Amino acid sequence: MDYASITPVRKEVVSVMEPFLKEFFANPSALYKEGVDNKIAIEKARQEIASDINGRPSEIIFTASGTESNNLALFGIFNFFKKGKFVPHIVTSVIEHPAILEVCKEIEKLGGEVTYLPVDSKGFVLISDVKKSLKKNTVLVSIMYANNEIGTIQPIKEIAKTIRAFKKGSSNIYPYFHIDASQAANYLNLNVVELGVDMMTLDGGKIYGPRGVGVLFLKKGVSLVPVSHGGGQEGGLRSGTENISGIVGFAKALDLAVSEKEKESARLIVLRNYFVSSVIEKIPNSSLNGSLENRLPNNVNICIPNISGEFAVIKLDSLGVACSSSSSCRTISENSFSYVIEALNNNKKCAESSLRFTLGRNTKKTDVEKVINLLPRLF
Amino acid sequence: MDYASITPVRKEVVSVMEPFLKEFFANPSALYKEGVDNKIAIEKARQEIASDINGRPSEIIFTASGTESNNLALFGIFNFFKKGKFVPHIVTSVIEHPAILEVCKEIEKLGGEVTYLPVDSKGFVLISDVKKSLKKNTVLVSIMYANNEIGTIQPIKEIAKTIRAFKKGSSNIYPYFHIDASQAANYLNLNVVELGVDMMTLDGGKIYGPRGVGVLFLKKGVSLVPVSHGGGQEGGLRSGTENISGIVGFAKALDLAVSEKEKESARLIVLRNYFVSSVIEKIPNSSLNGSLENRLPNNVNICIPNISGEFAVIKLDSLGVACSSSSSCRTISENSFSYVIEALNNNKKCAESSLRFTLGRNTKKTDVEKVINLLPRLF
Repeated sequence: MDYASITPVRKEVVSVMEPFLKEFFANPSALYKEGVDNKIAIEKARQEIASDINGRPSEIIFTASGTESNNLALFGIFNFFKKGKFVPHIVTSVIEHPAILEVCKEIEKLGGEVTYLPVDSKGFVLISDVKKSLKKNTVLVSIMYANNEIGTIQPIKEIAKTIRAFKKGSSNIYPYFHIDASQAANYLNLNVVELGVDMMTLDGGKIYGPRGVGVLFLKKGVSLVPVSHGGGQEGGLRSGTENISGIVGFAKALDLAVSEKEKESARLIVLRNYFVSSVIEKIPNSSLNGSLENRLPNNVNICIPNISGEFAVIKLDSLGVACSSSSSCRTISENSFSYVIEALNNNKKCAESSLRFTLGRNTKKTDVEKVINLLPRLF
Repeated sequence: MDYASITPVRKEVVSVMEPFLKEFFANPSALYKEGVDNKIAIEKARQEIASDINGRPSEIIFTASGTESNNLALFGIFNFFKKGKFVPHIVTSVIEHPAILEVCKEIEKLGGEVTYLPVDSKGFVLISDVKKSLKKNTVLVSIMYANNEIGTIQPIKEIAKTIRAFKKGSSNIYPYFHIDASQAANYLNLNVVELGVDMMTLDGGKIYGPRGVGVLFLKKGVSLVPVSHGGGQEGGLRSGTENISGIVGFAKALDLAVSEKEKESARLIVLRNYFVSSVIEKIPNSSLNGSLENRLPNNVNICIPNISGEFAVIKLDSLGVACSSSSSCRTISENSFSYVIEALNNNKKCAESSLRFTLGRNTKKTDVEKVINLLPRLF
């Protein structure tokens, strides 16, 4: 019940990875046949990924994680414009993942300006707020496609439209639009042209692919300053010998996710709605955090007044259920408290008394029933 | 004949990795049993690595590659001291890997000062040059343990001693000493206390371990500013969900390398010396680049006047031999020319007319004989 935190690697993905661990291991920069073959394998993976998101192969940058993709996108744009004569301004939201928020804090320390948009009581960024936030010096808007804690799907196309309209009024090529689609990739439309985004982050560990591999889609014409330097791989944007097995595994995982997303989303929405309605019915005063519509098909996040979320996670663990009280991607000292849920209603109670259950490929109705039957034992 | 460029993953390493791909996949930051178990697996890997290099577990930082470890070490120190009232000065050598040289160039652009030490005709950094280079504002010396192209092993202990002697004269905790041990790890002493280093880079892809995993040994008390930001993993120095299968694979690979290094080094030194003496004897006017003593056991780098290194690599490929004309870690346009070999004697001829053969675990005497017999066909 914690698939948002990490996914197992699908056996189809392990199968395509294994030959590149032991047998086809040559360095893709090498001039001999085995190196060239591996270069071709990487370019084939790049093409597959590009085709899955309707981008160009040259727009796919391989990184080591969603976190690294986010760092590259934000620092890359900030450092590019920092050389100019104005203070670069970035717009984001208060419920982003730490891999965006912590980078933004660092950019502020380095002299950048950041606007953190609030969200409404269901977790949505308001288009009117985006509109108001855009300024002459806004170089980037970074909004997550779907939230990792409460599953809220942001109005990405409308935000893109708002930015385009703003650009029309100016003669600048910026602001650019970046989305972190790490949580969205299994379920939502990843067509970058339809979405209207300039950059998009993907993470292998969230799509039943390998951990330690991420992707940044970077639209042709958008210039980034690299974060790390070295051998000049990935068009100079990300140095380091290519992780071939990880790269081919990522391509396979994304391809499976994209081809199965409609069927799997439909299946999970039924399970999710059954889960939510059963809990609300059974547990007095419980409520759903976030919106039921425009929500990731696999996300259930419930406020249960007067329980400690952290204690409940440990208690449920002893009963055989693995779930989460907030995001896993935070230090233990912060784990008992969700800044995302606090932002919904400025109510610390739910931020400390909520449980996140995230379903996945192996979740069946019997699993959901088991959890629902165990929840009363928290009291 | 190109094991310096990349190594296959040993089957013992694949075996320890596989369970963490499919079965034990929980996020180590999670509070439930499976998460805690994986946290323990990572800490066990950290302990094993620490014990293999005589460090403390808390001194082991997991990264995605040797390149990332080098970036973290150099930018981390530079950005830490940049806040001070002086211009931070870094000392390195002209024959470092691009993952050091390109970072140094970037640091110069950011206002830092870098001294690039020359090397002698065999590729050694001179202690007298190190001594002369150290200044009041020197915060870091970064010298590779063994060179990736010519295998020259630098006098690390003596450099450490020189830095310690310089520190005694000042009241500063710097300069710190970083070594890139990516190429050295299979063959040389990695005891960080005996070596006297503050930071050391290791790379999984060079030690028959997984690609996409690196380590930075960071001595207790040395402060770095992180390069990337997010969930705060690795003590805040390297954010991103941990690549567990990669981490346990790295620990296994390093453990095997350290326990087998004496036997394997002895075996390869015999093969290497046979290779070198046979080529010098058979090919008129050929010569060894670098020193035969204090050289990596697996490295052969030969200057063959009047051939094109790049053409020779392609010709040998057609004859079934995979080797290299310089480092693989460079863009194709640079591949025909070695700045390392040029630095030895300021002779562009050998820089364009050399071949690197790097032996490995699967290399047998018959392989070496085959290559030696094929070399005359280059003319």
